[in-house]
Amino acid sequence: MRSHRTGRLHNFSAGPGALPLPVLEDVRNELPVYRETGASVMEISHRSPSYMQIEASARERIRSLLGLTTDWHVLFLGGGASMQFHQVALNFLPPSGQAGYLLTGTWAKKAHAEAVRIGNGRVVASSADAAFNHIPNPAHWDLDSRDVYVHFTSNNTVYGTQFQYTPDVSCPLVCDASSDFLSRPIEQEHYGLIYAGAQKNIGPAGVTIVLVRNDFLEKRNMNLPTMLDYGTHATKCFNTPPVFAIYIVEKVLRWLEGAGGIPGIQTANRRKADLLYSAIDSSEFYRGTAETKSRSLMNVTFRLAKEELETTFIERAAGHGLVALKGHRSVGGMRASIYNACSFESVEVLVDFMKDFEQRNS
Amino acid sequence: MRSHRTGRLHNFSAGPGALPLPVLEDVRNELPVYRETGASVMEISHRSPSYMQIEASARERIRSLLGLTTDWHVLFLGGGASMQFHQVALNFLPPSGQAGYLLTGTWAKKAHAEAVRIGNGRVVASSADAAFNHIPNPAHWDLDSRDVYVHFTSNNTVYGTQFQYTPDVSCPLVCDASSDFLSRPIEQEHYGLIYAGAQKNIGPAGVTIVLVRNDFLEKRNMNLPTMLDYGTHATKCFNTPPVFAIYIVEKVLRWLEGAGGIPGIQTANRRKADLLYSAIDSSEFYRGTAETKSRSLMNVTFRLAKEELETTFIERAAGHGLVALKGHRSVGGMRASIYNACSFESVEVLVDFMKDFEQRNS
Repeated sequence: MRSHRTGRLHNFSAGPGALPLPVLEDVRNELPVYRETGASVMEISHRSPSYMQIEASARERIRSLLGLTTDWHVLFLGGGASMQFHQVALNFLPPSGQAGYLLTGTWAKKAHAEAVRIGNGRVVASSADAAFNHIPNPAHWDLDSRDVYVHFTSNNTVYGTQFQYTPDVSCPLVCDASSDFLSRPIEQEHYGLIYAGAQKNIGPAGVTIVLVRNDFLEKRNMNLPTMLDYGTHATKCFNTPPVFAIYIVEKVLRWLEGAGGIPGIQTANRRKADLLYSAIDSSEFYRGTAETKSRSLMNVTFRLAKEELETTFIERAAGHGLVALKGHRSVGGMRASIYNACSFESVEVLVDFMKDFEQRNS
Repeated sequence: MRSHRTGRLHNFSAGPGALPLPVLEDVRNELPVYRETGASVMEISHRSPSYMQIEASARERIRSLLGLTTDWHVLFLGGGASMQFHQVALNFLPPSGQAGYLLTGTWAKKAHAEAVRIGNGRVVASSADAAFNHIPNPAHWDLDSRDVYVHFTSNNTVYGTQFQYTPDVSCPLVCDASSDFLSRPIEQEHYGLIYAGAQKNIGPAGVTIVLVRNDFLEKRNMNLPTMLDYGTHATKCFNTPPVFAIYIVEKVLRWLEGAGGIPGIQTANRRKADLLYSAIDSSEFYRGTAETKSRSLMNVTFRLAKEELETTFIERAAGHGLVALKGHRSVGGMRASIYNACSFESVEVLVDFMKDFEQRNS
């Protein structure tokens, strides 16, 4: 049901996804004037103290939440995570070298395709043959000690799968963490670079967070286009950043701290996912599409035993204030995206609706 | 003075610059819920009808305001105008061809530097020797019929100069119009591509508008990185766009229509600039830094005859609610950016302050 107080529905959008209500209320309260600036935050110089303080705060909060050591740079780039597919390979795939790619879904494939345009992007493993319904078993990965990095997508939004462990490889990992960034801890010592479009867990679309370790950064190729060289952004503010998106990210980070930081949100995310997967598993009416061991805590993909009822399910759910449950157009069925900002209450309402829908249609 | 009603000051920021107050109030009113979506506009899918309608509206309004023919694509890209410096050359500078660059300031130089990384980016003319205080005289341009495009920066934010005419060349023009886009008409028949970061005249930082004519687009190089290929974005929505920035651009475009469209805003911009330049020219106390024939209607750069008083000028102005008047760090002095959203009233208050400051300090 629509909340009478706020008019807000239970939002299961896969991205851009739900943001915490207090963040939005805060943004509202700071329009059309941000504090003492006499203007909104969108209208002040990105080199003004008022804005630089916001960006520095966002950077420090990410460091602090993840416990990053000082050898990590925290960058805020425009262009979306899709730009990183190209940028990672451009910076780190040497002309006569190679890198490994784990193909676990749509976005991983796209990242790999951009690497192949640049050089030798090898496939380490793929679950394409099984419609990406699982993370390939590490026992069968084709690892190669000559790889300068191994790229993987930690959570696969479209297929509802997620790595439940840090891939064990002998070179630095490069990770597209767009759909589970700051939802759980990261074992930083295994990574060279981590990137995440903000629009799932940490903010609005329009900014991509890039964490890059200094020793990895120093191995990048030379003479790169200025804007695509990670080194440009690690050393200075080269151009106007996506100010408003970073401003909202900073507020989401504060909210995350208030929710207990990474340990707190991880517990909350497990609780939400457990409730929903239990509802799916306890009934013959529903069927999860991802293999159990590969299930995502962020995107729960499921189907009805009676697939012909799925359109009705999605429509009725919307009538009950449960929106954006339609699965990705490439796989069909249902998908409940339960990112950090999705409340336990929203999942409870969904589960209640599912039980009710099952009773009425069994 | 700070407006008692809104707390807003007279904002002369060079960018991100002032936005129309009604736009900001509208944004505020649509938080935390956008219309019937049950969520803010930041939290809905970029493939939802609610969002797609916003983007289509923005696209059509740009077409309509500029009277673009149907052979133009209107793209909304992330990454900032600085990314376009690379992207333009990557797409359109052929491996064995050449393009011309007009060097009229900081941004023009940066665009040229990225072209040189890719291929033969020739200098057509430069005013670097005169600290970029004018647009080079076309009589002395080194034109070459082999150029596949000539790139220019229509308005130079840092130096306060602006092209007062469309450059007359025998190939398509590529224009960085970041700081005067939609402030005056464009003679579209002479252009192949026009790009503009939104954060001066048409929205917040985080989105770059690219207009590209189809026959020019078709001549681009092949096998480009997907995200950097203009063709990718001309044919489909490839990845998540900077939703919120586009949403605000759409509102600014509506506001611009209400202000009389391009003819209306051009008249208003001339009136503001005339008032300010007259104040500068009518006094020995102030001195414009750009040559008269090259003066910008967007960024008015000036100095005091007594340069040692400039810090005091800027401080006192701020005390009177006139903010962000400090010149770019590379040139010093003062700069009043009077983009579309800057009101005539703000310029009047500035001119009154200038007269008063002169009286007190002569």
